[in-house]
Amino acid sequence: MPEVKLEEVRRFMEDSLKAVGAPESEAKAHADLLMHADTVGHYSHGLNRLEFYINDCQSKACVPTAKPEILKESGATAWVDGHNALGATVGNFCMDLAIKKAKECGVGWVCARRSNHFGMAGYWALQAEREGLIGLAFTNSSPIMVPTRSKQRALGTNPIAMAAPATDGDKLVVDMATTTVAMGKIEVQIHKEEPLPAGWALGPDGKPTTDAKAAFQAGRLMPLGGEEKTSGYKGYALSAMVELFCSGLSGSNSTHNIRGWELDSNQGPPDLGQCFAAINPECFAPGFGDRAADCLNTWRNLEPVDPALPVLAPGDKEHHIGEATLAKGTVNYPQRQLEAMETMAKRIGVKPIQVV
Amino acid sequence: MPEVKLEEVRRFMEDSLKAVGAPESEAKAHADLLMHADTVGHYSHGLNRLEFYINDCQSKACVPTAKPEILKESGATAWVDGHNALGATVGNFCMDLAIKKAKECGVGWVCARRSNHFGMAGYWALQAEREGLIGLAFTNSSPIMVPTRSKQRALGTNPIAMAAPATDGDKLVVDMATTTVAMGKIEVQIHKEEPLPAGWALGPDGKPTTDAKAAFQAGRLMPLGGEEKTSGYKGYALSAMVELFCSGLSGSNSTHNIRGWELDSNQGPPDLGQCFAAINPECFAPGFGDRAADCLNTWRNLEPVDPALPVLAPGDKEHHIGEATLAKGTVNYPQRQLEAMETMAKRIGVKPIQVV
Ligand SMILES: NC(=O)c1ccc[n+]([C@@H]2O[C@H](COP(=O)([O-])OP(=O)(O)OC[C@H]3O[C@@H](n4cnc5c(N)ncnc54)[C@H](O)[C@@H]3O)[C@@H](O)[C@H]2O)c1
Ligand SMILES: NC(=O)c1ccc[n+]([C@@H]2O[C@H](COP(=O)([O-])OP(=O)(O)OC[C@H]3O[C@@H](n4cnc5c(N)ncnc54)[C@H](O)[C@@H]3O)[C@@H](O)[C@H]2O)c1
Repeated sequence: MPEVKLEEVRRFMEDSLKAVGAPESEAKAHADLLMHADTVGHYSHGLNRLEFYINDCQSKACVPTAKPEILKESGATAWVDGHNALGATVGNFCMDLAIKKAKECGVGWVCARRSNHFGMAGYWALQAEREGLIGLAFTNSSPIMVPTRSKQRALGTNPIAMAAPATDGDKLVVDMATTTVAMGKIEVQIHKEEPLPAGWALGPDGKPTTDAKAAFQAGRLMPLGGEEKTSGYKGYALSAMVELFCSGLSGSNSTHNIRGWELDSNQGPPDLGQCFAAINPECFAPGFGDRAADCLNTWRNLEPVDPALPVLAPGDKEHHIGEATLAKGTVNYPQRQLEAMETMAKRIGVKPIQVV
Repeated sequence: MPEVKLEEVRRFMEDSLKAVGAPESEAKAHADLLMHADTVGHYSHGLNRLEFYINDCQSKACVPTAKPEILKESGATAWVDGHNALGATVGNFCMDLAIKKAKECGVGWVCARRSNHFGMAGYWALQAEREGLIGLAFTNSSPIMVPTRSKQRALGTNPIAMAAPATDGDKLVVDMATTTVAMGKIEVQIHKEEPLPAGWALGPDGKPTTDAKAAFQAGRLMPLGGEEKTSGYKGYALSAMVELFCSGLSGSNSTHNIRGWELDSNQGPPDLGQCFAAINPECFAPGFGDRAADCLNTWRNLEPVDPALPVLAPGDKEHHIGEATLAKGTVNYPQRQLEAMETMAKRIGVKPIQVV
């Protein structure tokens, strides 16, 4: 796969966002969000999504010059109107506010309506973690999860993210869709020509399938846990919880009313709901960081079933890939993806990505 | 199965708790917690657990006369020492505080160390829901979950509970262990002489098993999601999140240091960590209750795969069983359980349960 320098990917992202109207600061902020995904190995949420954001800016579904606004505020809370700004614009506005409130009164809980796709939820939780706080981030999304017993989709992959600081720069990072897997993993099985494990997806009849192509066409993801007998309703319940944190509190669209997020979508703003929170460990027992580090290291040092596969703490996988990417200084992208970016570059009048 | 009037079960619970030193108010509070479980059909957490609490009071692992104390406080937070009081004593103290803070400044986030087993986590979340708030409750527990890739246990069933009010008395209630199932469900399979579904439990070698007896003896539950290929690490990650909310913030024992909870346990106080939060929807967009009700009803009205199994909203199962139990006014218990209660009644000098 062709290799691209990290600075070049970032340059291309910023140029592209500026070409469709994003101010310098917001282009930088949004590029940073997408760069994080490509750096830690969640390629589905990096350059791979750029064209979606570009198209949304061009169709005015997203207004990259918009400024979020506080509609209501209390000691620990704020209700924000994202005014359809870029996800990173809304995310930074809300998480900064949550951090400020957590430092002032222990907790900050901020919800935004009229937001756009905010990428990796964990990126937002980590903003609070870097300030010594526990960070939480949630978003609703397009309807793709089929609740337990249902034939129809109604909820989203509605992710839950939580990041917590531990001693010596260590951290816990939980960042997960509430479906068993995201659609991207089904595409990977198609390319590998392998069947799906049971518990990932349903066919068009609402029954579990292991046929990757049928699952991809049906677009019906199962909640974390899979079928009812393996407690799949718990993944559904978690997605429902996220839904009320996001659309419930913010007054945005509920997931069952959100449009699909497609490349050629032209259906107006999605009006996503998002929720950002920060909790200050200093308001509780002294020594949070040490206890967190003790937990993380206890888990990592558990005896593994297979010595070649050590036990990881949540967040370790992304941390290791992130360190390797930064050391290497480059990312590899499939040829096809770079070609699509070249076409887009021409379309919006931006210098194409230079491979190494 | 023999039938017992609800008032009689409650009478027996209160008498038993008073017999081992609980003041009237705390005996009532703890009986209310256990009655809730038997009323909504979570029999594992009701009368079934009474003897554990009784024995803990007798061995002084639990001090039923103790009063929880605030150690540190800010606008939205409080750090509490439970002083090894009954779970219900600590729960009421902390949730009342969280509710007060949420009404004052939007969010209340309260963590307690030195608590005892607090039963159904959802019971606590519902206290906030009844006040028009979103309630959250978390607890750590004894090590019984095997993290992904590990052979050894390290985390607990560490439940997550969230309850949210909807219009006309409707509500969302998410209340779930972060393991696929609790140990009780494995016992049920043993009694039914049926194998376990894949994804529930591991054998003593740390490999998945469907042999109910082997699983029961090994006592190694899998996290929600099951194996790594079906994202079992997400259940592990959720349990880790709960751990840091509970032991991390409160300074209690971490799950990997907590003793087992056994009938004849005499190893001193467990020093559990618990976390209670309340969020005030009035601080956000008007109409939370209507949006919540719209979500709940949308989910319930989804077309089911099997018309005989309608789609439920999280919490509906317990709600329906609760209504039926209250209408009937009685609960049925296995003969063996009532015999055990009779033996205990004699031992602590309390009038045995009268069956109908
Ligand atoms: N904005 C949106 O609408 C949206 C929707 C869904 C997902 N997402 C994002 O997509 C990304 C990927 O989500 P996902 O569900 O595929 O994540 P994932 O399954 O790759 O990882 C989930 C979590 O599990 C941890 N993990 C992975 N393997 C582990 C192991 N063996 N042991 C312990 N922990 C382990 C990871 O560190 C992570 O915290 C996330 O960043 C998520 O926020 C965004
Ligand atoms: N105190 C402790 O240490 C501790 C530890 C673990 C569990 N618990 C308690 O045990 C109880 C049982 O836990 P569990 O994990 O076995 O719960 P469960 O699997 O029975 O239910 C989990 C959640 O899913 C919902 N649900 C069930 N079937 C559904 C369906 N078909 N559609 C939609 N939603 C559905 C329920 O209403 C509930 O909210 C809980 O009250 C929990 O708090 C306590």
